[in-house]
Amino acid sequence: MPDEASLLAANRAYYRAFSSNDFTAMNEIWGQGDISCVHPGWPVLVGRQAVLASYRDILRNPQQEPIQHRNETAMLSATEGRVFCVEIVGEAALVATNWFRLVDGAWRLVHHQASPLATLSEPQSRPRSLH
Amino acid sequence: MPDEASLLAANRAYYRAFSSNDFTAMNEIWGQGDISCVHPGWPVLVGRQAVLASYRDILRNPQQEPIQHRNETAMLSATEGRVFCVEIVGEAALVATNWFRLVDGAWRLVHHQASPLATLSEPQSRPRSLH
Repeated sequence: MPDEASLLAANRAYYRAFSSNDFTAMNEIWGQGDISCVHPGWPVLVGRQAVLASYRDILRNPQQEPIQHRNETAMLSATEGRVFCVEIVGEAALVATNWFRLVDGAWRLVHHQASPLATLSEPQSRPRSLH
Repeated sequence: MPDEASLLAANRAYYRAFSSNDFTAMNEIWGQGDISCVHPGWPVLVGRQAVLASYRDILRNPQQEPIQHRNETAMLSATEGRVFCVEIVGEAALVATNWFRLVDGAWRLVHHQASPLATLSEPQSRPRSLH
């Protein structure tokens, strides 16, 4: 049975791959099947080739700011797990969804999406522009 | 077996519920189990109570701008389906992920996240700030 501790460990491994510019680790974290990714401001990337190419560029980019993550929330169901967390990138705060699937006993990322937070200091407040 | 046509129909039903301010329809579209939602600028909402309360407020809000959707991309796997599309809200363009699960033959939404697109006119371009 999947457990929350291993799911959160997989999420930490994702950010560790970022911090260490480790493309090999990033490549392993992502699933082999249908995967998708929405980087902030980007259109959706669909499929392993497009998604991993984006990470190769990002990890090679010397201007890429360090990413810290915090406030993890895990949601487990059968062989799937979502982790929501706040990413701090420079002065920006984002909400990230990292969606994992359990494959042969290992959590593999099948979707990532990061959205800018309107405010960091008041996370419970509701921005004016609803949708 | 799930099919793409029914998945895209479920996605259209989600935006139809928006357009018609139909909270009953919106309530039915969302799954009963673990659900999550990230509105633009908001922190993540986890669980049916928080998610549906947000939609009740949004659908009641007279200042809520109409939402159009286009450029749908479907990704099907077993009993799950993701639909990515571009939302046009006023002058803003967003990338939305709508994640459905097949429950008793009906697609139910289990996750929604919308992120601002950096540019609408050049959807293939890469914004300066990578991550």
